[in-house]
Amino acid sequence: MSDGRPILALALGDAAGISTELAAKVLADQELRNAARFVIIGDRRQMAAGEEVAGVQLDIGTDRFLDTGNLDQGSVTYGEASAITGGAAVENFATALQLADVGGADAVCFTPFNKYAMRLARPDYVDEIGFIQATLGTEVEGSEFNVLDELWNARVTSHIPLGEVAETISEERVLQRIKLTDQTMRNAGFPRPRIGVAALNPHAGDNGNFGSEEDEVIAPAVKRAQELQINVSGPWPSDTVYWRAVKGEFDVVLSMYHDQGQIAIKLLGFERGVSLIGGYPFWIATPAHGTAYDIAGKGIANPQATKNALMMAAKLASASERERADESTRDIAIEAVLESRLRPVE
Amino acid sequence: MSDGRPILALALGDAAGISTELAAKVLADQELRNAARFVIIGDRRQMAAGEEVAGVQLDIGTDRFLDTGNLDQGSVTYGEASAITGGAAVENFATALQLADVGGADAVCFTPFNKYAMRLARPDYVDEIGFIQATLGTEVEGSEFNVLDELWNARVTSHIPLGEVAETISEERVLQRIKLTDQTMRNAGFPRPRIGVAALNPHAGDNGNFGSEEDEVIAPAVKRAQELQINVSGPWPSDTVYWRAVKGEFDVVLSMYHDQGQIAIKLLGFERGVSLIGGYPFWIATPAHGTAYDIAGKGIANPQATKNALMMAAKLASASERERADESTRDIAIEAVLESRLRPVE
Repeated sequence: MSDGRPILALALGDAAGISTELAAKVLADQELRNAARFVIIGDRRQMAAGEEVAGVQLDIGTDRFLDTGNLDQGSVTYGEASAITGGAAVENFATALQLADVGGADAVCFTPFNKYAMRLARPDYVDEIGFIQATLGTEVEGSEFNVLDELWNARVTSHIPLGEVAETISEERVLQRIKLTDQTMRNAGFPRPRIGVAALNPHAGDNGNFGSEEDEVIAPAVKRAQELQINVSGPWPSDTVYWRAVKGEFDVVLSMYHDQGQIAIKLLGFERGVSLIGGYPFWIATPAHGTAYDIAGKGIANPQATKNALMMAAKLASASERERADESTRDIAIEAVLESRLRPVE
Repeated sequence: MSDGRPILALALGDAAGISTELAAKVLADQELRNAARFVIIGDRRQMAAGEEVAGVQLDIGTDRFLDTGNLDQGSVTYGEASAITGGAAVENFATALQLADVGGADAVCFTPFNKYAMRLARPDYVDEIGFIQATLGTEVEGSEFNVLDELWNARVTSHIPLGEVAETISEERVLQRIKLTDQTMRNAGFPRPRIGVAALNPHAGDNGNFGSEEDEVIAPAVKRAQELQINVSGPWPSDTVYWRAVKGEFDVVLSMYHDQGQIAIKLLGFERGVSLIGGYPFWIATPAHGTAYDIAGKGIANPQATKNALMMAAKLASASERERADESTRDIAIEAVLESRLRPVE
């Protein structure tokens, strides 16, 4: 029966890494179980192997396990990327998205993926946002946030070559991202988020000496956003804007490109960071770190970032205005997804 | 008389900021005075104002003060950039470079400049390296290093628009910078420096999905450098390479662009970082932070980075193979520079 806790769809990640161990460890965490209910999505045999590595025995209780039957753990070698583990991770993720899409879960979480392994199974898998668009059949380009303690980071561009960043950050795109960041942060519980926009060029272009995008693209977008009463400022030199945010000056930094924010976030707390994707009817959350093939199967993986990701997903789902899944919605949705699951993802 | 301590030419920086206060504070530091002798270059009236703000009274002792007579402190307003303070800083810097060039000092140091103020006086002042080239009459493009505690950072490109970085980092240029970094670090006392080369694109290009420069430009340059017995590796994803260096895996990271390394360095210790320029017969050192107009004249500026810069310059000058300036060399050079100083810098 429904008890107010949100339902998180938890897709098991790459079975050759630490992903299943992490899932087992966090599902054994009582604080987390008190904060959310779960639909665990993956192969029972993968989960059992994860429990063994983690040294825990899970009691599913009133949660549900959606057994995808897609991974014979006996065929997996820890530390070796393969189409077997990659394909299962892709399928688990698609299933979780479909479940949340039809209302059977209030947020989607996953333990780390290995993109290389995923592409062995699905060569067209570029990144999470592209896959979400294809799976949900939407053209909405979601926004990825990296969260570390109190510091949020969003991006205007993400998985593109650095050489294409300057031509990609149009005034419209920057404005759209400021608006999306503002809206997403409001949904996350910030009544009037303070957005610091990073510059593109060294020394914020140094008055045009080292680039003109600050004056021609970013500043006009910031001005238009301010006219919409958004609490935004910048462009600020990117080598101090994260430091200023850490000191409390901004709730979120809007980066112009991937590594700008990632360098800062990973340096501040490699193990603890959380990645969020917003812009869809439900949140998607995962730890920011990877599959850690070098320590897979050893039982020594640190589950803190995974726990942080799931706790944050629970908090965001609770604050969401979307109608909350109840017990019967969940069960009906699981049946529907189980029936349709083998349909190839478009 | 000469006593083994190296001679540092210390150019006073922008008089509207904290630069003179910093100079006064560090020159009152006995540990620093024990490590180096000084030729202080600036206007006596500027120095006196700095002493007053810092609350110290300097005893020049056997050091020298080269009075440039170029700044009437009474015409300076703290926190306001002007051609007066910028012009004096440019002139002090040129004088220090000329002094070291003719053997009158073993290294050049300066307290923070304000580029905007410098350009009010000298519109063609782009950055330090260009100015050094013009002043010394050389085409050698020096290499800037940022140093924070044990972590060094060098760059393949610096003060150019981000949109020009990808086209600028040729294989030859990356190789040349690896060699320069290796040589410079050896001069700085690392017998076989471990150089970690940062990637350009997100996820180091992700096997070509997000850019090809890693495979086509950076990796070939790294391979050629390895064939020269240089202890170099990469390209490594830039969002973890600095973290790995902090953990002790590399002595120096070679960044592809300005903000890559600056985001990391400034986040790790905004107040303490040092900027070095190598590649010339003498080292040039300055604190990595700026003129801090917001706290100018208050006596609250933290001199730690300036002290670190001067201590490092002393150490590097001591380790340098260049013939050391002695007392009479210094004095002859000062006279020569004083005589020629008013000649416009080419």
